[in-house]
Amino acid sequence: MSLIVQKFGGSSVSDAEGIKRVARRIIDTKSAGHDVVVVVSAMGDTTDELLDLAGQLTTKKAPAREMDMLLSAGERISMALLAMAIDGLGAKAASFTGSQAGMMTDAIHGKARVIEVSPKRVRRAIDRGFVAIVAGFQGMSKESRDITTMGRGGSDTTAVAMAAALGADVCEIYTDVDGIYTADPRVVPTARKIDTISSEEMLEMAASGAKILHLRCVEYARRFGVPLHVRSSFSTNEGTWVLPSPDDQIKIQEGEPLEQPIISGVAHDRSEAKVTVVGVPDIPGKAAHIFRVIAGAHANIDMIVQNVSRSDTGRTDISFTLPMVDGEAVKEALRSSQEEIGFQEISYNENVGKLSLIGAGMRSNPGVSFTFFEALHQAGVNVNMISTSEIRISIVTDADKLDDAVRAIHAAFDLDTDDEATVYGGTGR
Amino acid sequence: MSLIVQKFGGSSVSDAEGIKRVARRIIDTKSAGHDVVVVVSAMGDTTDELLDLAGQLTTKKAPAREMDMLLSAGERISMALLAMAIDGLGAKAASFTGSQAGMMTDAIHGKARVIEVSPKRVRRAIDRGFVAIVAGFQGMSKESRDITTMGRGGSDTTAVAMAAALGADVCEIYTDVDGIYTADPRVVPTARKIDTISSEEMLEMAASGAKILHLRCVEYARRFGVPLHVRSSFSTNEGTWVLPSPDDQIKIQEGEPLEQPIISGVAHDRSEAKVTVVGVPDIPGKAAHIFRVIAGAHANIDMIVQNVSRSDTGRTDISFTLPMVDGEAVKEALRSSQEEIGFQEISYNENVGKLSLIGAGMRSNPGVSFTFFEALHQAGVNVNMISTSEIRISIVTDADKLDDAVRAIHAAFDLDTDDEATVYGGTGR
Repeated sequence: MSLIVQKFGGSSVSDAEGIKRVARRIIDTKSAGHDVVVVVSAMGDTTDELLDLAGQLTTKKAPAREMDMLLSAGERISMALLAMAIDGLGAKAASFTGSQAGMMTDAIHGKARVIEVSPKRVRRAIDRGFVAIVAGFQGMSKESRDITTMGRGGSDTTAVAMAAALGADVCEIYTDVDGIYTADPRVVPTARKIDTISSEEMLEMAASGAKILHLRCVEYARRFGVPLHVRSSFSTNEGTWVLPSPDDQIKIQEGEPLEQPIISGVAHDRSEAKVTVVGVPDIPGKAAHIFRVIAGAHANIDMIVQNVSRSDTGRTDISFTLPMVDGEAVKEALRSSQEEIGFQEISYNENVGKLSLIGAGMRSNPGVSFTFFEALHQAGVNVNMISTSEIRISIVTDADKLDDAVRAIHAAFDLDTDDEATVYGGTGR
Repeated sequence: MSLIVQKFGGSSVSDAEGIKRVARRIIDTKSAGHDVVVVVSAMGDTTDELLDLAGQLTTKKAPAREMDMLLSAGERISMALLAMAIDGLGAKAASFTGSQAGMMTDAIHGKARVIEVSPKRVRRAIDRGFVAIVAGFQGMSKESRDITTMGRGGSDTTAVAMAAALGADVCEIYTDVDGIYTADPRVVPTARKIDTISSEEMLEMAASGAKILHLRCVEYARRFGVPLHVRSSFSTNEGTWVLPSPDDQIKIQEGEPLEQPIISGVAHDRSEAKVTVVGVPDIPGKAAHIFRVIAGAHANIDMIVQNVSRSDTGRTDISFTLPMVDGEAVKEALRSSQEEIGFQEISYNENVGKLSLIGAGMRSNPGVSFTFFEALHQAGVNVNMISTSEIRISIVTDADKLDDAVRAIHAAFDLDTDDEATVYGGTGR
């Protein structure tokens, strides 16, 4: 008997039929003898409807605390309905809000981070034979006791945090595709489903824009050693296992000892913008000052390039990428520190795309970067920024060249398969 | 400067326009120099929509705990939106769920009763200059820490409980009519608005079916000495003051010392059913047994009549009225105890109506009951059951005779006025 955490997104529970299908799936797992904790997002359009209502009330930005209070109502509805559906099928179920489930976060409304998880009530429910249903995406500020929400991918993070705190055997992330692919199948129809991938590589994939799993969820899973199983809510096929340690990977592949492929996949991302701070005085502490200002705006920056200083002016340019949604806040924060930092101007470009090649095999394969840049060159793709880690190469190029670049790289590393993947829509919690 | 609790029902906040109107009203009060605590119900149709969704999931009765979790989402939405609207108009507002506001109840889901109110966070918000918005209708079970809801009229009870705990100067109940009337204006178009009424009389009115204020709210207000002001959310006219003690009534009427009218009003109620337990052995303890069984089904019975025992059989009939919604549960509970109690059968009739005449002046006016029964007789109304208190006479008659009876009594006690009242729809929270 295992303890399994199952996470279902908003598109899986968008109506009564969807909720009933999810309920049956949960009961199948329970009937197979497992304990089940379910994490669920708000029903399909709930969030948009609530945001629309809020938008009708005032032209001012709504107070973040109240916005979290509003949005957190969505999971209450879906989780209570799911509990009723499970009960209707003859099993026992109890739903828990973020705060009831002990999801304690910091007080940054709209993008709160988990500080501590103490799922005592969830544990007690499981021990009494209940399916415990936990509201995804939401928690309670440890400091202010206010309701918080955790931003995009928050429900995945809730699921992994619950799995870690409960010592679950696996955290299953149900989605509308049947696993993680070597590239986005909408761009590369010949992309292959990955059977297993290490947390480390998955982390690079997620950070590089692969949408199925969010970065924070993978970080959390890796840190606490939670095996993730990303699979389709429309089939019972095995999906993609994301495994925290090489030992686990060997365990899973028992009886079928495959050579790890050199390259895991190609990820791309159109959600970032490129910012260049032009004419920064080339004296110690200026770069640190800039990044302190950005951190103050609660933005996560991604790639950073500092140009060679121009000896004639004693100034340099610093470029970085960051999520577009943080663009306005960062520009504003930088402008208000312009005099103090002493830079000349800010240039801002949303028309960029990022491509990343990920694979643990890169470490020992010197030919990878040659093949990579050669393929980009053949495809006529300009490279604006480059960043690398031991298991990743990323470049920034013009947005309209991104799809070509992805296909070229996918082909160059022999990732193509003959089967076409099925693709559905998806949601963001 | 006063502390004012204002309660707005679901029909006042049914859309963005309504929420904005309520927000302006609150700000007007705040601008006049008062501290304001607002209690709000779920938006117009929210509850029905949620119940409809729940109904699509299973034919079984949904678990009560989950139903409360589901329905409590409604106030989260309305209160967060109201806070945003107030913020948009330039004042500060913070919303609080039942549990955040310290509304501790028993664990009877769907009709929980308040055990204790500790509005520390609400108090802190007021002290910091915020309008505090509290979710009506919901609380948290002190024992299980589960979300509870308080049933029909629950938001009124929340408002009065908050007012009592905070020592508010007045609890304003905003509604869609401009006060309490001497009879339901839909039945008696010539009914008059009552300016002031004692808690005691209001209690009898509410218990007798006057819909504007719920019984529990009035009980609570009376017990804790909270003055209620029932008024229209569509005008700034004075409504009806419900005053806990005669001293307060004199205070309000200062400068205009009116003789208290003998009769306050006529209330009627179609929501009850009449149950007769036929052939109960006329031995000690049987009636007590029956009412213990009914209490076990959490039903509130209203009028009770025990017939004279038939000496030939040694059996008697016991009749009582109760809310129709409790009918099934009570019938079931009684049937399962039939053998033990030894009664012969149950008869159940929903086609009944109750009329009550209320007035503190009855105590010292011996002619009241004569006029009452004479008027019913003249109108051809049959009387099935009678019950009286010092300030009330109630009768049960056939449902189709009820309106005639109300009009006859209203006229017989000279309650008619020439102005017609305006009537809008209403909701139940």
